[in-house]
This record gives sequence, structure tokens and C-alpha cells, in this order.
Amino acid sequence: MLLERISSPQDVRDLDAADLPLLCSEIRQAILSSSASVGGHIGSNLGVVELTVALHRVFDSPTDKLIFDVSHQTYAHKMLTGRAANYLDAERFGGLSGFTSPAESEHDLFSVGHTSTSVSLACGMAKARDLMGADYNVVAVIGDGSISGGLAFEGFDNLAELGTGVIVIVNDNGWSIAENHGGIYRNLAELRESEGTAPNNFFRSLGLDYRFLANGNDEAAVERALLELRDIDHPVVLHVCTVKGSGYEPAEDDAEGWHHVGPFDIESGTYEALRRSRCEKSETYADITGRHLLMRMAADERVVGISAATPYIMGFTKPRRDAAGSQFVDVGIAEEHAVTYAAGLARAGAKPVLGLYGVFMQRAYDQLWHDLCLNNLPAVILDFGSSVYGTSDATHLSFFDLALQGALPNLRCLAPTCREEYLAMLDWAIDQDSRPVVVRVPGNGVVSNPDFALDPKALAAEFALPRYDVVHEGSDVAILALGSFFSLGESLCDALSAPADGGPALDATLVNPRFATELDEAALDDLARSHRVVVTLEDGVLEGGWGEKVARYLGPTSVRVLCYGVRKGFPDRFDADELLAENGMTLEAITADIRAALS
Amino acid sequence: MLLERISSPQDVRDLDAADLPLLCSEIRQAILSSSASVGGHIGSNLGVVELTVALHRVFDSPTDKLIFDVSHQTYAHKMLTGRAANYLDAERFGGLSGFTSPAESEHDLFSVGHTSTSVSLACGMAKARDLMGADYNVVAVIGDGSISGGLAFEGFDNLAELGTGVIVIVNDNGWSIAENHGGIYRNLAELRESEGTAPNNFFRSLGLDYRFLANGNDEAAVERALLELRDIDHPVVLHVCTVKGSGYEPAEDDAEGWHHVGPFDIESGTYEALRRSRCEKSETYADITGRHLLMRMAADERVVGISAATPYIMGFTKPRRDAAGSQFVDVGIAEEHAVTYAAGLARAGAKPVLGLYGVFMQRAYDQLWHDLCLNNLPAVILDFGSSVYGTSDATHLSFFDLALQGALPNLRCLAPTCREEYLAMLDWAIDQDSRPVVVRVPGNGVVSNPDFALDPKALAAEFALPRYDVVHEGSDVAILALGSFFSLGESLCDALSAPADGGPALDATLVNPRFATELDEAALDDLARSHRVVVTLEDGVLEGGWGEKVARYLGPTSVRVLCYGVRKGFPDRFDADELLAENGMTLEAITADIRAALS
Repeated sequence: MLLERISSPQDVRDLDAADLPLLCSEIRQAILSSSASVGGHIGSNLGVVELTVALHRVFDSPTDKLIFDVSHQTYAHKMLTGRAANYLDAERFGGLSGFTSPAESEHDLFSVGHTSTSVSLACGMAKARDLMGADYNVVAVIGDGSISGGLAFEGFDNLAELGTGVIVIVNDNGWSIAENHGGIYRNLAELRESEGTAPNNFFRSLGLDYRFLANGNDEAAVERALLELRDIDHPVVLHVCTVKGSGYEPAEDDAEGWHHVGPFDIESGTYEALRRSRCEKSETYADITGRHLLMRMAADERVVGISAATPYIMGFTKPRRDAAGSQFVDVGIAEEHAVTYAAGLARAGAKPVLGLYGVFMQRAYDQLWHDLCLNNLPAVILDFGSSVYGTSDATHLSFFDLALQGALPNLRCLAPTCREEYLAMLDWAIDQDSRPVVVRVPGNGVVSNPDFALDPKALAAEFALPRYDVVHEGSDVAILALGSFFSLGESLCDALSAPADGGPALDATLVNPRFATELDEAALDDLARSHRVVVTLEDGVLEGGWGEKVARYLGPTSVRVLCYGVRKGFPDRFDADELLAENGMTLEAITADIRAALS
Repeated sequence: MLLERISSPQDVRDLDAADLPLLCSEIRQAILSSSASVGGHIGSNLGVVELTVALHRVFDSPTDKLIFDVSHQTYAHKMLTGRAANYLDAERFGGLSGFTSPAESEHDLFSVGHTSTSVSLACGMAKARDLMGADYNVVAVIGDGSISGGLAFEGFDNLAELGTGVIVIVNDNGWSIAENHGGIYRNLAELRESEGTAPNNFFRSLGLDYRFLANGNDEAAVERALLELRDIDHPVVLHVCTVKGSGYEPAEDDAEGWHHVGPFDIESGTYEALRRSRCEKSETYADITGRHLLMRMAADERVVGISAATPYIMGFTKPRRDAAGSQFVDVGIAEEHAVTYAAGLARAGAKPVLGLYGVFMQRAYDQLWHDLCLNNLPAVILDFGSSVYGTSDATHLSFFDLALQGALPNLRCLAPTCREEYLAMLDWAIDQDSRPVVVRVPGNGVVSNPDFALDPKALAAEFALPRYDVVHEGSDVAILALGSFFSLGESLCDALSAPADGGPALDATLVNPRFATELDEAALDDLARSHRVVVTLEDGVLEGGWGEKVARYLGPTSVRVLCYGVRKGFPDRFDADELLAENGMTLEAITADIRAALS
């Protein structure tokens, strides 16, 4: 096996050209067998095998700089830079990050998981090279799906006047996560069909040199094209066409389905849809949301669902997108536009419901602040996956969302504790027209509470002003357990009432705060009068989060406040329960803290 | 005078075409005389007089929707929609917002002050129109300078597949705030020179219909062009060339200088450079920064200054930009790119120093989190104007920056109290290579402290770990006064030590915390042992800010914590001292709170 003998890119360069088809085939097989076992980004990785081999034959990494956009397509790159065993040895499958990671290899320049960054990073590295009088190639590899993000445009726009050598490879497989959306994709299609000769050319319009390569899955052809560009003295775009899922028929036939899958059977091509959380075993909030929104859309033509290239997180599978028709819009990877577009929709009387991963809400901070909140427009944002039980890659941590939202004026962020409360909040958010509302969809699985009942007519009063729900009145200590961590609050009350160590039982007050960025000051005043300790539990980062607001409000009183959340940091591929334990969030640790504070 | 008789757009439509040159001349005169008195955005407003008149003659606002990008160019629009008196009557000069404001008029659809939003807003309004079966025109007016922002690209990209009527007017005056930067501007220039016929066409490359109008200062010509587009059934871009400062020679001759000025003399064309703060009477942090960075650049070719279209905030006037040469880069209005570009520079060993207004840091939240902080790269960001004494337009509030940064891992935010400490922090930030550093430049004027002394060799130890500077050790109450509010802390200590009402004197401890997003836990532990009350003072929003971190950390102790800052909200054109008073931040109110907490 050739791949086993590749310990560095030099070994790739030393191979005979005649051996390369075999190498590519081995890489492809390794992608399939490792991903079949642990899941992964199938389509994009199969598509860039030949491109990656050619990159490492033409350029001399790490002296030459290879920058991968999103970097979910770097399995072949990892195999060729000393990490092949992680894709060949079943015991090591899944041992590497799914993204480039400087901690793993000097060939990985950045921790990257978000789109559209590579052109700007390449501009920066090329500029530094020139300032410091160095001499190497800077190469960015960006997928067509990443080009719709505004940052990529800003990068291309600045690249055009950089006046020095940078090579940007646009790897065009014709797909984003789902279908591509936006005018740029019509242009890429024109360019593909005309073999790069169409008169309209986005890249040339910005003043960039442009080259076209029809078959990016022909290693020799890619190698020739790259050789022509090596050591170029100005910015150039090489538009390379590849096939998403190349070489594996099921993935070629269903590009959306095979973008990212869980374990699968190679022979039959059946896969598990990737679970976003260990807890979503059966019912998912995605499905609950899709079903409910479709019903709301049918009853009201003003309701419009919006996604930024991830329709599945809000349950909008292809059949549901078809059913929604013009009432569902995927704007592609363009979170800023998605939020500002929602602001425009709300201003003109529609009822936009935008579904975002918490981590990608970060890409639209100013649009939230300036377009939505300053204008106080009644758009609804569903904040998915925001939990320590969500995605655990450092690039995709989704539990910074409350800190992000906490200072946004006019915004109401509601944190439901169960599916019934979620639907009540969602309905209220859609029906009201006084402000932007975020509903923080629990990211730790669906809890159903059949006892939960809100009279639909009472909804307006329920969520119109910040009001806590005191679920149980006890004494001494009050547990304020926000949203997805309400069940942790219940467990904590149980543990306090029946201590394992036989200590004195405590009858703790249990509160469902419901409002994640605003305080119910009257309720806090009441609690402060009748309790000595207040505990806040939140499924998110501690700094700038919700609990700190409670601590600040109660700061002038004699009440002791204990805030629990995750300290800021970039933990990577962690076990959520271990992370909570490291942050003092076990029942044992919290009960001990409470007893100490009371004594 | 015609203008006095215009109370609504209908009056504009009722005018004889022959009267329009006079109307335009009156508008131009009103712009000049009101701005000469109170300052304003001169160049852009003079440039769009004819365009604005034509818009209100062809379209029927507010039924038809006019959306202005940035909206600093809407003086004529305001005059034609019932607000002319504010530009004609000297007593009412400056009484209106400098931006569109729905609170002022139904003709102002959004509160807008940031760039690049109009295309996305227009997409949203058009989509809502279609969903609801309505029938009106949606028109966005976007300046060429705003097109470099990625959000505008996302908007154009989505506009191309919207499949319904939207008119986007690209008002091309050839200037951003300073010179335009980016490949798109070469294309706009080509299109201007070829009267819209150049083969490379950015808008057409996205699949958009495109029209060109050479003289946008010819009202009749604009009117004819708009009439052709009214009720169009698909998205179209009208590229209109106007002259920034049109009709006023000084502004035509110096577009950058006259972008936004303070009061000026119309005859001689001499103006005050706009003061960003009431306190910056003589020495400014802009000038201090420009001078210091130029010196650092001369000594080290790795140091590179970066601006996103506002070089003047960091003191990079044209002569300093010329002196810096390739070591200063203006990337245009592209904050996301600016941050990610800085990350690339730092990764390759350069020493980027990026100057941003605090409010525009918001546009790059994810780039801060993902590109800079996750990769822990040693770029320096200078955070300007972040103070309640900064710009007071609701659109430009710059005191949310600490809440924004508070949860960003790896980031060190330093808050200097005087010019000497600022330069020490700036030097340390540039020289270190362990992490991204923000220096929060005081936005309330330059304080010099000649006694401040840090041995340059001791700098590494000073700022390498969060360490508070206990300036005075007292008892009972500790005042932690952050950065620009350190002088408030000094005044507070004085007030406590010599009470005006003859009450008991308090010898308060005074602390310069220096670290705005991290805690010195050992110092807080010490303070908690020896004080009964801890006070935090910060020049920023309370929710999610720095003081709440202190309150959370001390929550489990018996110390009372009083946090002072501004409650989240969008105050508009406020008096800073009044705003502080409303938030309980007068010496009288705070001393009373402290005495109550001690009693």
C-alpha cells in the first residue's frame, strides 16, 4: 500500500506519476472506511482527493502555505502530511479533528471550521511575507459554497489590489451544504458550461486573473495547472471543477444527504443522519420545529422560514421545503444577509422565522444589533444547538450565544424547558409584533412535560414582560435553572431534599426563569427577601452570560449568589459531562457549594 | 422660496419641471447653511440632491419604499418629506437625526447608520410585499463606498435570485470616507469610463439587470431613468454617477476632508475637523497613536497598521499614510476582512495593529472569535471611541464593546487610564506574541499622568497576567475604576473622604483594574477579605460588561458589590452626563449608595 509509506509531502513528490491513480484510490478508500465507522464529511473529501495530491506535489508545505476554507475537506491533506494511520488503522479512526488543527501538524495553519475565511487569511499571510522579505507561495482552497459569505467577497475584493502573488483555488462542486443559492452560482455554472469563457465573470469583474480547469478529479491535469501558477507574481483564481462525492456512487447521487453523515454501510450506501446531540435519540427539535412551522405557514401567508444554508436544523427537509414553497427561503451561507433580510421582512409586515446555529449567529452580531434590535423589529430567531451537549469541535462551540445576546437592547431571548413550553414560546414570538425574539431551542434533547399547560389566550401576558415561573416555593436556597438546564435544577432540588450523606434536608425553591437576557427584578427582590443563597444554572459560557446579570442585580444585597456555567475557553472534542464536572457542575459539587454558602 | 412650500413629496411631484433647478439650488443652500452651523455629512448630501428630488417625483413614498444605505445622505430626503424647516430655520438646525429615523417620519423606514444593509433590507421588503399580495416599488440607494462591505455582496447575491421587482441605485461618487479600496472600485471606474459598457461588470456577473446613468446631478436625466424602472418586475441595478460635494467647490476639491465636518465658514471653505468627543480639545488619542505607530513602523518592518475605511481615527492622515507606505493598509469598509486579514498577518509573523471604532468591531464578532481568538494570534486591535462621551447617535453607540469582548477566550483587553499607560500597553501588545490584545483607547479625552512610570523592561510582567494596580489602600469600600472612568473613581474617593454633608469621612481603596475582560482573582480575594463594599465603575453597558464579572466572582462572599455602567438601550443624541445621571452615576448618587450599603 502506497499510503502507508507516505510520512510527509516529500514522499508524495517522490512518487512516480504512474503511481498516483493508485494513491488516489487508496486515499478514497481510506476516507470511506474511516468515515463509515465514525461518520464525517463524505462528499467534499471524496471530491478533492486529486486536487490535494496535486497541491502537495506542486507546493512545498509548510514552507508554502496551504490554507483550506472551512477545512472540513482536509482528510486527504492529513493523510499526506504524516497522519495517514488515523484513516487506515481502525483503532485510530476519529482520533483527529475533522478540521485543520495547528496542534496536530505544522501543515495545518489555522483552526478553521467557519466558511469564507481563506481568502482574507491568504491576503494577510502574503502581505506578511512581502513585508518580511520572504519568498513562498500562499495558496487558498475555497469551495463554491463558501463564496456566498460576505467575508469571502471582502477577501476577493481586497485580493484584487494586493499586488502580489496569491493563488486562490475555487473548488467548484456545484453544492453548498444543500443546494447553492445566489447569483454567483449562476455565474459559476455559466463558467463551467463555457469552460471558463463566459463573458460575465465574477472574478474578472473584480480585476482578478482567472484560469479554468474542467476536470479537477484528473490529478495530472490539476498538477499541470498548478505548476503554471507556482511562484506567480500577482493574485490569481483557479476555478477547478470537481465532483462532490467523486468515486462513491451513493454520495455522487445525493450530494446533500452525503454532505455530512454518521456511520454508514459502504456496500449498501445507507447511513445514519448525523445526530447533533447525544440526547436526540428519537424526537428532535428540528422535526418538531419543521412540522409546527409548516402548519403556521399554511394558516398565515405572512409566516416565512429562513435558513442560511442549514435548513435541516429547523426540520426543513427537501419535502418540507417543497411544501412551504415561497414561504421558505434558503439564502445560502450568508448569515448577515439572513438577519438583515428578516429585518426587512418584518418591517413590511411579514413574520420571518430564521433558524440559526448558535455559533453562526456570531456571524451576524452587528446585523442583530443594528438592523434588528435598533429598529426593534418583530423577527423570530430560533437558536439551535446552543448547549454544551451540542457540537463539541472547538470551531463549532455553540454555547457563547447568551453572552452574545445579553447586551442587545430590545431583544427578548426565551429559554424553554420542554417541548410544550417551546411551542408556546414559538407561537407567542410569531404572533407578537413588539420586538425581536430569540427562542433558545434546548440543545440537550427533547423533554416533554405533558403537565405543562398555557392557555393560548394567556400567552401574551406570559412572555410580554420578563416574569419568572416559581415552580416550587421552598426556603433558604433558590435554584434558578435556565432553559435546557431546568432538569439539572430539578435534580439539584431532589439531591438537596434527600442528601446522600444523611445531612440536613433542604427544601429549595425552584425557578424556571424563562427569560435568558432580562431579569424579573420583582421576583429577584422577593427571592432575596426570603432566601440566603441564590443559584443560577445555565447551559452556556459564564462570562457575560445570564447568571452574571443575576449576580450583579443581587450584588448590593446580603444574598450569596452562586453562578454556574462553563468558563470561557475553546475546549475541543470534549465530553460534555466531563466539561461540566471541570466547571464544578456536578450535583455533588454544587450541593457542597450551597451547604458551604449557607453555613 | 420653493422649499418652504414643500410639506410632502406630493408637493414635489406637483412642481413644474422648470422649477426643479431652483428647488435643487435651494436644497443645496440649505444643506450648506445648516451644516455650516452644526456640522454634518457635507459631500454625500450635496451629491444626491438631484437624485433625491427625482426619487420623490417618480416614486410615491411611503407607499413605495425608499431605503437609504447608511442614510447619512438623506438631508434632501428629509427636506422633501415635511422637515425642511429643520434646515431653513437656524433655531432648528441640528434638531433632526443625521440619519433616517422612523420616529421622525413615516418616510424613514429604518434607523440606519452602518453601511451595506440596504440591499438585504430591500430584498426582505420585496419578499414581504409578494407574500402579502401587495404592489409597490422597493428602492434601495447605496453609495459606492458601501459596496465593499460583505453584507452588500450577500444582498446582491440574493437579490439576483429574488425573482421580483427591486430597484437598487448605486450612487457612485468615487469615494468612500477616504479613498475607495478594493477590486470592485476598479470595475466601477471601468464602468464609469465606458458609460456602462465595459465587458467586465460586477452586477451582471451576478445575473443582475444593469443600467447606467452618466450624470446623476442632472435631475431630469435621473427622473427619466427612474421612470423607465418604475414597476419593473425583476431586480435591477441603476448605476448613477454623482459628484461628491457637488455644487460647493471646497467639498468637490477635497472629498475626504469634507466627508463629515464640524461647523465651517461657507465663504472661505474652512472647517473644524469633527471632534469625536467633547473632551478632545487639544491632544487626541488619534494623533498620539499615529505618531507612535509611525515610529514603531520605522523601527520594525513587521509592524503594519490596518484600517477599515477610517484611517483618521488612528491618526493616519494622508501624510502619515504616505510615510507608512506599504506598512499601512486601508482595506475599505470591510471590518470582517480587516480582522481575518490581521489574523493571517499575525500567523505569518507580522505585527498587525488594527484600529476600529468600538461600534464597528461589532461587524467582525465571528472573525474575532473564530479567526483571531480560537487561533490565539497576536494581533493588536485599538478600540476607539468606546465611551458614553463618544458619538451619541443611537446608530453609532460605541459602548457595547466590553460586553462584546467579555466572553471571547484568549483575548486580553487592556483599559489604560492615561496617555502614558496607553503607550505602555500599546508597546506591550505589539511586542508580545502570545495572544490577541485589544487596547481600549479612552473615549473621553486624553489624561496625562507624568507620574505614571513603567520600566519598559518590566512591561512583560505588567500585562502578561491579569493584575490589578491598587493605587491607594483604604478600608471598608474599594473602588474599582476601569480605564477611562479611573478619573471618576478618583473623584469618588475624594468625595468619600470629604463628604459635603459633613458625614463621616471614608478612606476608600482605589484600584486601576487595567484588565477589562479578565479578573485578577487574587486581588479580588484580598479586597473581599478587607472590605465590606466593592464598587465597579465602567464606561460602558452594564449587561454582560466587566463589572458583572466582578459581581459574579464575589457573589459567594459576604461583600456587597455595586456595579455602575449604562443599562442596555439605544439612547439617541443624548448628553453623556445626563445619561450617566439617569443610570445613577453621579458622585452624589454613588456615595449615597455606598453609605447605604455600608450601613
